[in-house]
Amino acid sequence: MTCHELDRTDPAGAIAAAAERCSNRGRWGEDDVLGTLNFLDESKRVEGASLIRRGVTFSLAQRFDANGPQKGWRRRTNPVHTMLSSGLDAEFGREEFPHGLGGADDVIHMPLQASTHWDGLGHIFDHGTAYNGRRASQVVTSEGDLLTGIETVADRIAGRGVLLDVGRAIGTDHELPDGFAITVEHLRATIAAQGDSSRVGRGDLLLVRTGQLTRARRDVAEGRGWGDYAGGPAPGLSFTTADWLHRSEIAGIATDTWGFEVRPNEFDVAFQPLHQVVIPHVGLFIGELWDLDALAADCAADGIWEFFLTAAPLPVTGAVGAPVNPIAVK
Amino acid sequence: MTCHELDRTDPAGAIAAAAERCSNRGRWGEDDVLGTLNFLDESKRVEGASLIRRGVTFSLAQRFDANGPQKGWRRRTNPVHTMLSSGLDAEFGREEFPHGLGGADDVIHMPLQASTHWDGLGHIFDHGTAYNGRRASQVVTSEGDLLTGIETVADRIAGRGVLLDVGRAIGTDHELPDGFAITVEHLRATIAAQGDSSRVGRGDLLLVRTGQLTRARRDVAEGRGWGDYAGGPAPGLSFTTADWLHRSEIAGIATDTWGFEVRPNEFDVAFQPLHQVVIPHVGLFIGELWDLDALAADCAADGIWEFFLTAAPLPVTGAVGAPVNPIAVK
Amino acid sequence: MTCHELDRTDPAGAIAAAAERCSNRGRWGEDDVLGTLNFLDESKRVEGASLIRRGVTFSLAQRFDANGPQKGWRRRTNPVHTMLSSGLDAEFGREEFPHGLGGADDVIHMPLQASTHWDGLGHIFDHGTAYNGRRASQVVTSEGDLLTGIETVADRIAGRGVLLDVGRAIGTDHELPDGFAITVEHLRATIAAQGDSSRVGRGDLLLVRTGQLTRARRDVAEGRGWGDYAGGPAPGLSFTTADWLHRSEIAGIATDTWGFEVRPNEFDVAFQPLHQVVIPHVGLFIGELWDLDALAADCAADGIWEFFLTAAPLPVTGAVGAPVNPIAVK
Amino acid sequence: MTCHELDRTDPAGAIAAAAERCSNRGRWGEDDVLGTLNFLDESKRVEGASLIRRGVTFSLAQRFDANGPQKGWRRRTNPVHTMLSSGLDAEFGREEFPHGLGGADDVIHMPLQASTHWDGLGHIFDHGTAYNGRRASQVVTSEGDLLTGIETVADRIAGRGVLLDVGRAIGTDHELPDGFAITVEHLRATIAAQGDSSRVGRGDLLLVRTGQLTRARRDVAEGRGWGDYAGGPAPGLSFTTADWLHRSEIAGIATDTWGFEVRPNEFDVAFQPLHQVVIPHVGLFIGELWDLDALAADCAADGIWEFFLTAAPLPVTGAVGAPVNPIAVK
Repeated sequence: MTCHELDRTDPAGAIAAAAERCSNRGRWGEDDVLGTLNFLDESKRVEGASLIRRGVTFSLAQRFDANGPQKGWRRRTNPVHTMLSSGLDAEFGREEFPHGLGGADDVIHMPLQASTHWDGLGHIFDHGTAYNGRRASQVVTSEGDLLTGIETVADRIAGRGVLLDVGRAIGTDHELPDGFAITVEHLRATIAAQGDSSRVGRGDLLLVRTGQLTRARRDVAEGRGWGDYAGGPAPGLSFTTADWLHRSEIAGIATDTWGFEVRPNEFDVAFQPLHQVVIPHVGLFIGELWDLDALAADCAADGIWEFFLTAAPLPVTGAVGAPVNPIAVK
Repeated sequence: MTCHELDRTDPAGAIAAAAERCSNRGRWGEDDVLGTLNFLDESKRVEGASLIRRGVTFSLAQRFDANGPQKGWRRRTNPVHTMLSSGLDAEFGREEFPHGLGGADDVIHMPLQASTHWDGLGHIFDHGTAYNGRRASQVVTSEGDLLTGIETVADRIAGRGVLLDVGRAIGTDHELPDGFAITVEHLRATIAAQGDSSRVGRGDLLLVRTGQLTRARRDVAEGRGWGDYAGGPAPGLSFTTADWLHRSEIAGIATDTWGFEVRPNEFDVAFQPLHQVVIPHVGLFIGELWDLDALAADCAADGIWEFFLTAAPLPVTGAVGAPVNPIAVK
Repeated sequence: MTCHELDRTDPAGAIAAAAERCSNRGRWGEDDVLGTLNFLDESKRVEGASLIRRGVTFSLAQRFDANGPQKGWRRRTNPVHTMLSSGLDAEFGREEFPHGLGGADDVIHMPLQASTHWDGLGHIFDHGTAYNGRRASQVVTSEGDLLTGIETVADRIAGRGVLLDVGRAIGTDHELPDGFAITVEHLRATIAAQGDSSRVGRGDLLLVRTGQLTRARRDVAEGRGWGDYAGGPAPGLSFTTADWLHRSEIAGIATDTWGFEVRPNEFDVAFQPLHQVVIPHVGLFIGELWDLDALAADCAADGIWEFFLTAAPLPVTGAVGAPVNPIAVK
Repeated sequence: MTCHELDRTDPAGAIAAAAERCSNRGRWGEDDVLGTLNFLDESKRVEGASLIRRGVTFSLAQRFDANGPQKGWRRRTNPVHTMLSSGLDAEFGREEFPHGLGGADDVIHMPLQASTHWDGLGHIFDHGTAYNGRRASQVVTSEGDLLTGIETVADRIAGRGVLLDVGRAIGTDHELPDGFAITVEHLRATIAAQGDSSRVGRGDLLLVRTGQLTRARRDVAEGRGWGDYAGGPAPGLSFTTADWLHRSEIAGIATDTWGFEVRPNEFDVAFQPLHQVVIPHVGLFIGELWDLDALAADCAADGIWEFFLTAAPLPVTGAVGAPVNPIAVK
């Protein structure tokens, strides 16, 4: 990897250069809708399965409810879950069904990126172009993502997962501070610290723990609330990792932060520049707001940082983001 | 299994008797929230993992969208998915972000049982009592399921799956007609026809294909619409399978129909009597509206009817039902 | 009025010609957002107030609920109303408040045009242009109508209302059949039949009853359901009324049908061509799915077809349509 | 009015005593669903109509949008308004309709009390009883208010409105501070200051301006946000006004605050005790989050504090609260 010195005044130039270096556009044909999930093949799943030794599972999802971290930015609210009927109706209400049957039903309203989710390939555009060079307007209309909707990868995301606990390896008390930019050097140091089970390569699903969620939950528990966890300053991937993310040929990456990359970004005036490279050019699947804490504790305990990971997004037709309950099995 | 002659005029009596015979109430302690998922242990997951041979995956979810089968019965509507911003905004709209970044976001409103889902233990009550003998009103209020919300099983449902394609084994052109009651004899005949890989036992996740979804999709494709697929007559489990479902100690069961059991039910005046036994008394997890067709075709082709199955429900806090994208890996 | 012979094969030509004849673009300045509501001035409200003689009121709204006429066309579903807490929680649930206080709250999800509503000026475009010649993309983005959102007319719509019961005057059993095109001649004949109180002029809010809702409700009551009331064939205004609608200088018009104009439309291949003239060119406010039956019965009884009408849309910021509970007072 | 000394330690006792003194239960028969709206008769509407002199209108609604004051307390969120199609789709998207027609549609999700609304009679209970002594569980279930849903008053609320600008009469810079309890003496002093047009009596719709909304909007404009405007400390009616509210025989009352009565309440441990008296016992209709500023300025300017008021709630079937765009005409 070449170390790319960032000119803080020129995000557009840096993005354009990285996009050119890292482009996968056309790599899998003009009709491709899978992006880096093309790297996740059947042999990778067989390899992942071999990592199931004890049969223990970890859900990597946060809870979906009204007490979540969202604050309404860009109409990203917390899920609102309501009951169509409840146990009170069943026990005390009008008899609705014969022979003593009672039932409860429920309904939800939520932004698809309110809690633990995958970004779809239609989530981010670069100068009006989407993944594979398509025009944004031809891909995502008010009817949703007509080509790369999350349903197109409904059956893909199961394979070898590997966790890099950068918070534990590099941070203080297992946490990186907000604004900490994780560079390739940090990733390498973490791999070195964790040992061979944390090697990262083609087709892997890479999880990066920063520790920010640990901190945010502590803030909630101690009465300070979520703060800006769902849209503010955060540790995260440095813009300079673009080439490594491309070259490593990972199938996807997920973090315990709202935005995957470091915030504030590493330019004077910028907004999520790494997204602008890795989604529309690399075709990379990004997971956000994942809960990696329990898995990380287990990995630290047994020294094994790889596992079988299933992270199947809810196949909402045309979705540009999708809620998911990822399950790691060791 | 004793063959239980059903008195069509006495569903309440039949339900009470089956409930007494099949009760797991108290079996795992008074605080238990897992029901039959207690059967799904780590060794079962290791066994399931050993079934991953080729690395092929099958999503068992239907699509979540406005063109689904719901007709509004009991306010069960189809999902409404809308965009908070689209590719058209990104390409032609006001500049919202610096350096050419564009983004699309989306939101959904849906009943939690609109499409492929698990019933939670708080979904059905028997005479005002929920699983483990709790009062319905103490479990599920307008705030949701306070004890057995689906989030309590967020990390559990991964293990050995087994598919019984009763439609293929018993039906005509691989489909059972609406109103066809699948008995224990039919289940056994299917197992016998399919061979040893389809044995069913403790901790297994049992999938039962009736073929009704195949038929409904054909109806849609040929312009007749979904009809009553999401709430009308259907093939399904006979009430008489209650003891077998209990004794087999399966961890969960899922079908390609809206309601798991046969409709119309096998009593003169009744509504989902098998639910009334297996959810509040057996503590059984039931999956509905699953899409088993592609998996069934593969199993028929290679003669192997078992696989690793991950079916992690979206952990909506307090949900009595939960959407899921189940992934089978062979 | 000139009688415009319609060439059934050329809707585009007819629309373009009518748009040119009837345009109010620029009439009230380039910043105008009120369209024909400019005609509704204070003197008109004083005139309207003078029509309140008996103090009787009529709500012209249909109910907003899950049993409404919508069928999901273009994701237009019926409202879904759910409770955040209920009387059952208050009477039997956990104590939430001190001193015996109990409360119920509720929430709704609905398309803004699901039931009785006004079309806003941002609802319809002609070849990508909105009212006053603005580019559609500059007016209505994914964030809503940035210029002519319904909130801009939140305080305007109160004045003289006049009801033309064309169903009663022209139809059989007070109903026009589906597909019946109401021409200027029919409007004039209705005015003549009803007498002087039904004259129509500058600033009036014109209500046109076809009787279709009467028929649809009879269908519902007799078990046949809503049929295509919310999107199918309907009696309604003929395309040829465009000039009359323009020249009469009415402030708004509302009907008891889903789409105001006759369906099928009067061209071989067309969709709502009169909308395309009167919203983006005339700037006319159109009300749809109004319930005019009780008011019509009263007017027929006392022979007075004019009244004070308040029809204040719910001021949803940026809405292109808005639910309303119109109140007529006689 | 008797001056009721409040024992701050005994809200339950004070509520019970006031409820007994002020009860309208049974006053209009056991089937009554109108409560104090029984006072608003046709003659009152004729009287109200006579107050329309200039024809000027005032919308008393706040905007319904994502930037509103709600913070998610008890799942009371701000409205989420999304587009089903936009002007961008019409101008640049796929051709959906013939002859150049384009359309935009939209949808909303909101708590019914998110912004300007009426409380329905099913909103508040006293020890499990609703208005007219009905059991709460028999009135409001998970299906909504089965008896006193807001649709039952869809056509009622039009009549004489009168504004008491207590903020202007008693406050500093036209605003009362948070926690200020408006007593009968304050109401009388305001009437005296404003003059004869502000007399309050049977059948009137009483509006009380505190000035809190003026302050909250200033906070928003100056970057401090809404603070706790939608659920925190507020000026409002004193518990001691219960008898006056009852004896005055007003049809309804509305304020520019979230909760109508003073917060914190006038007891050591209490929550909205005046609600507990006036809704289930008096049957009083309460409006909250109304915007009275423009109307108040006009009334102060011309010295006339009465007007014709139409405040027709959106008739959501079974709603315990309902959004409204009230229109005052002078």
